[in-house]
Amino acid sequence: MDFVVGVDLGGTNIVTGLLDREGNLKRTCKLPTEAHLGSSYVIEKIGKIIQSLLAEEQIDKSRVLAAGVGNPGFVDPVRGVSLFSANLGWKDVPVADKLRQQLEIPVFLDNDVRMYALGEALQGAGKGHDVVLGITLGTGIAAAIVDRGKLFYGGGYMAGEIGHIPMEGESTPCPCGVRGCLETVASATGIIRQVRAAIEGGRSSILQTWFESEDLSRITAADVTRAYDAGDPVAIEVLSHTGRLLGKGLSYAVSLLSPDAIVIGGGVAFAGERLFAPMKEELEHSVYHGYWERISIRTAELLDDAGVIGSALYAKQRMES
Amino acid sequence: MDFVVGVDLGGTNIVTGLLDREGNLKRTCKLPTEAHLGSSYVIEKIGKIIQSLLAEEQIDKSRVLAAGVGNPGFVDPVRGVSLFSANLGWKDVPVADKLRQQLEIPVFLDNDVRMYALGEALQGAGKGHDVVLGITLGTGIAAAIVDRGKLFYGGGYMAGEIGHIPMEGESTPCPCGVRGCLETVASATGIIRQVRAAIEGGRSSILQTWFESEDLSRITAADVTRAYDAGDPVAIEVLSHTGRLLGKGLSYAVSLLSPDAIVIGGGVAFAGERLFAPMKEELEHSVYHGYWERISIRTAELLDDAGVIGSALYAKQRMES
Repeated sequence: MDFVVGVDLGGTNIVTGLLDREGNLKRTCKLPTEAHLGSSYVIEKIGKIIQSLLAEEQIDKSRVLAAGVGNPGFVDPVRGVSLFSANLGWKDVPVADKLRQQLEIPVFLDNDVRMYALGEALQGAGKGHDVVLGITLGTGIAAAIVDRGKLFYGGGYMAGEIGHIPMEGESTPCPCGVRGCLETVASATGIIRQVRAAIEGGRSSILQTWFESEDLSRITAADVTRAYDAGDPVAIEVLSHTGRLLGKGLSYAVSLLSPDAIVIGGGVAFAGERLFAPMKEELEHSVYHGYWERISIRTAELLDDAGVIGSALYAKQRMES
Repeated sequence: MDFVVGVDLGGTNIVTGLLDREGNLKRTCKLPTEAHLGSSYVIEKIGKIIQSLLAEEQIDKSRVLAAGVGNPGFVDPVRGVSLFSANLGWKDVPVADKLRQQLEIPVFLDNDVRMYALGEALQGAGKGHDVVLGITLGTGIAAAIVDRGKLFYGGGYMAGEIGHIPMEGESTPCPCGVRGCLETVASATGIIRQVRAAIEGGRSSILQTWFESEDLSRITAADVTRAYDAGDPVAIEVLSHTGRLLGKGLSYAVSLLSPDAIVIGGGVAFAGERLFAPMKEELEHSVYHGYWERISIRTAELLDDAGVIGSALYAKQRMES
């Protein structure tokens, strides 16, 4: 068996790739998901993409060990079922079974953030570390734990919800039902909300000039980063506060899980040290120094490929276990 | 192989037991550690206790698979070395090697709280649950995670330090170097400190009558429980605050680890619902309801035997892996 297939299935795009025996990503393909056309359509599309990739590389199916799919939302990895995905609009879809029938190769399904973390842990910024906490800061916050090469799932496959820890002093209602969750602050949505609240509360910001005649709802997290670099006090205050709160949230994870490395990805990670400097300062002061001295904090390295590589390696692990 | 030996090595006592093939604790023996006589003395004593137990039961050494030892403090389970134990006054003691030479059977060493949690997870209050968070509330707080029958160690074997998470609103310096750690509040030491601070701050308590002419430093956590039952407002306030803070700390662990069961042991657990009612209330409000609905919160069942059973089962696991 020479190849494994990895699929990173998102609400917007499907990224598919082929991993060779040495773990090199041989070829990738990115196509729109077209989730509005329904689960059967999307799953068939994934199957066709995989078949095309193999045909283009002139690789016979018999040389493919298995395929792994990273699916957003709640997943039952044992049965290979997408239990609930808000991004895709799916409920109880037997993704693995359907793809297996179409492709006639073994197919395994798991959560997309777990696949992302596994990819970064095994071949990205977490490589060489025993215990890796992978975290993505995007529209929301998601995290997964890789323990000596294997995912730590927790009961009901529900571990890693650092984004839903309520933070002292925060009170924004979270869709999860709790108030002041870390995700309501340390995410793209949270950063934008804080900036808009400050401006609407009477603070003046360069962002008002940039979005002068337009709706403030068009502000993105990247705009806040630009405003920070322009010396905007609101942007500086918001990113500093967000960083400190993230550091506090990470301190809980460090004391409980003792990761050797924390790998941070997602769009908000592009804020870099503007966010990470206050985050690290808070983290250092909130954990026993023995943790701080041994931990490595890194930004993700594989970017778009992390999910594909992680899904492929996951499929390989499932075949070997 | 019909038997495994388990040893719970504490600063005060050594509890040793013999587990049969069915996992039944056949015989136990509790003797003082006499740690002041040094590590060589204590290790030889453990060896002699094991030899006596076997002789009394007329069990030949050839029928013993291995022995496991739960050691307080930092341990390197791979090399079987007690790295640092404040309770025993030990530093870099090769416990497993020494006992192995004496007994001529395989010996494995791990941390005592991990052994306690493993015992409760496999044969006690956590039995039947996939992911178990075991926590002991004693002089300090310690915790360990059992994931589908196996310990989750974290990097550097340092996972589970829920007691060293700094809690908002708390500021008591902790020996770990951080201020306001959960352990400074939700432990016997923490409860007593809070009660004394309240009294010394001018609050009146029934404990002043009970310890009238004596030093308030003689108050124990059990006395605070008795005062609570006598309707003492200071005791009620302290146990309620402690319970709420414990619930908050546990909420971090629940969102990150998603345990199916939390098993609480240690002397302070005898406070029961006086502590657990406010703890559960806080926990329920601090986590996504999906966690709350599936989690089982139990007090430890095996008491003194948990460490012995856990150590024996751990030795069995190490032999099988």
